[in-house]
Amino acid sequence: MTGPTAPDRLLSVLAAFDHEHPALSLTDISRRAGLTLTTAHRLVGALTRWGALERDASGVYHVGLRLWEVAALAPRGLALRQLALPYLEDLYEATHENVQLAVRDGHEVVYVEWLSGRSAVGVHIRVGARWPLHATGVGLALLAHGGPGLQEEYCAAPLASFTPYTVTDPARLRRVLAEVRRTGVAVSDRQVTADALSVAAPVRGPDGAVAAAVSVVVPHPGAQVPVLAPAVRLAARGVSRALGWRPGSGAGPVP
Amino acid sequence: MTGPTAPDRLLSVLAAFDHEHPALSLTDISRRAGLTLTTAHRLVGALTRWGALERDASGVYHVGLRLWEVAALAPRGLALRQLALPYLEDLYEATHENVQLAVRDGHEVVYVEWLSGRSAVGVHIRVGARWPLHATGVGLALLAHGGPGLQEEYCAAPLASFTPYTVTDPARLRRVLAEVRRTGVAVSDRQVTADALSVAAPVRGPDGAVAAAVSVVVPHPGAQVPVLAPAVRLAARGVSRALGWRPGSGAGPVP
Repeated sequence: MTGPTAPDRLLSVLAAFDHEHPALSLTDISRRAGLTLTTAHRLVGALTRWGALERDASGVYHVGLRLWEVAALAPRGLALRQLALPYLEDLYEATHENVQLAVRDGHEVVYVEWLSGRSAVGVHIRVGARWPLHATGVGLALLAHGGPGLQEEYCAAPLASFTPYTVTDPARLRRVLAEVRRTGVAVSDRQVTADALSVAAPVRGPDGAVAAAVSVVVPHPGAQVPVLAPAVRLAARGVSRALGWRPGSGAGPVP
Repeated sequence: MTGPTAPDRLLSVLAAFDHEHPALSLTDISRRAGLTLTTAHRLVGALTRWGALERDASGVYHVGLRLWEVAALAPRGLALRQLALPYLEDLYEATHENVQLAVRDGHEVVYVEWLSGRSAVGVHIRVGARWPLHATGVGLALLAHGGPGLQEEYCAAPLASFTPYTVTDPARLRRVLAEVRRTGVAVSDRQVTADALSVAAPVRGPDGAVAAAVSVVVPHPGAQVPVLAPAVRLAARGVSRALGWRPGSGAGPVP
C-alpha cells in the first residue's frame, strides 16, 4: 500500500494552522507539519488550487474560503450555531452579558459561538477555543450530563487548577456535578479567572441527550446567579427545541 | 511521482459534502467523489480519525468539529464574521431586517454571515450560499468596486435572469455599477426574487480595497431605500474600521 500516510500528510498541513498561527509561510508550514519543503510545496499547491488555503500578496498562506464553506456544514459547528443564534441573541438582549454556546469534544469544551457587546471586557474566549470540562460553566454542564463513564474517566485524571477556586478534588467535583444535574444549571464561580463567573445550562437534541451548553459570563463582583439562571435555562430550552427536542422526549429530564 | 492526485482524491471526499448533501453514507461519498469503495473507505477513515468527518450512530458521515475549528481561522470566513458581528447586530437592531455580510469569490458572492429575526420570512439565503454578482445588492457592491478588469470580464459573459427586474443588458449593468460607485450604495430592486429588495454598501480593508459588503434585505412593497441606505453605510464603515481601514487610507473613497 503506497500511502495510508498520504492523507495524514495533507491533514498535517491543515493542522499547522491554529489560533496562534493563522498565517504561515511555506517554510513555516513545512516545519510545523514536519514535511520536507518539496512535499509541503506540493501539498500546499493542491490545497490552494482547491481553495482550502489562500495565498496573499506577500506570499503568506491563510485558511481559505472553500474550506470554510465545507466546514459550515458541520452539525456541531456553524450548523448548530445557525439554529441557536436567535436564542443566543435573545439571551444577550435580556442580559447584555457575554453569551456562549459550546459542545464537548472528549475532555474539552469547544466554543462554537460567542456573542458580546463591543464594550464587553475581560473575557478572552474565541470561537474555536478549547477549555477543560471541569473549570467552565458550559464544561460542568456537559460533564454532568455526559454519563457516568465519562465522569469516572475524567475524575481519575489530574484536574488542572486555574485559580484558587478551581475544583481540583475529584470527590468535590462529583458533588458539584450531582448538584448541576439536580438544579439544571452549572455555575463556575471564579474557577477560570478570579474576576468572572459563568452560569450554564444544557441543550438537548431530539433524542433527549445533551448535545451542547449555553452560558453567560459576567464579572464576579455583582453577579446575580438567581437572576441569570432562569434566562440561561430558557435560552438553552429554546436551542433544544430548535434542534428538535420536545419536553418529555428521550430519557433526560427537562433541561 | 506517485501522487499529485493523492491530495486531490482526499479533497474530493470533502467536496462530496454540500448544502444539499450534508450527511452521506460511505457509498454516497464514493459515488459523489468518483472513488472506488476501497479508496473511499481508506480516505474517510483518515479524515474521521483526524476529526474532519464525524460518523453518527447510524453510520452516516457529517463534516466534523475539527475541520470547523481550522476553518474558523479563515480570514474571509469566520474571522471576518467575528470582527463584523457587533456592527451587523447594530444594523439588525436599527432595522430589524435581514442583515448579510458577503465576500466575492470569482464571479460569485459568498454569504459569510446572515442575521434574521425568528419571524423573518421569505429570504432563503444560508451562510456559505453563493449567488451571481449582478443580481444581489452585495454582489453589485463587490462588482462595482472590483476593478475595471473584473467588470469587463463579467459583462462579456451572459447575465443570468432571475426575475423580469434582473439587469441582463451589459451596457445597463455598467451604468448601474457607475451609480453604485457614485452613491456608495447598491440597490437590488426585485432582481433576485420579485418580493424583495436589498441595499448594500462596500466594506474596505486596511489598504482601502473593498474586501466585503454589508446589506439588508427587505420585503419589496414598503422598502424605504433612503432610510436604509445611511444605516447600511454606517454598518459597512464600522466593519471597515474593525478591519483596520481608516478614512483616507488607501486609494478608495470613503465607503
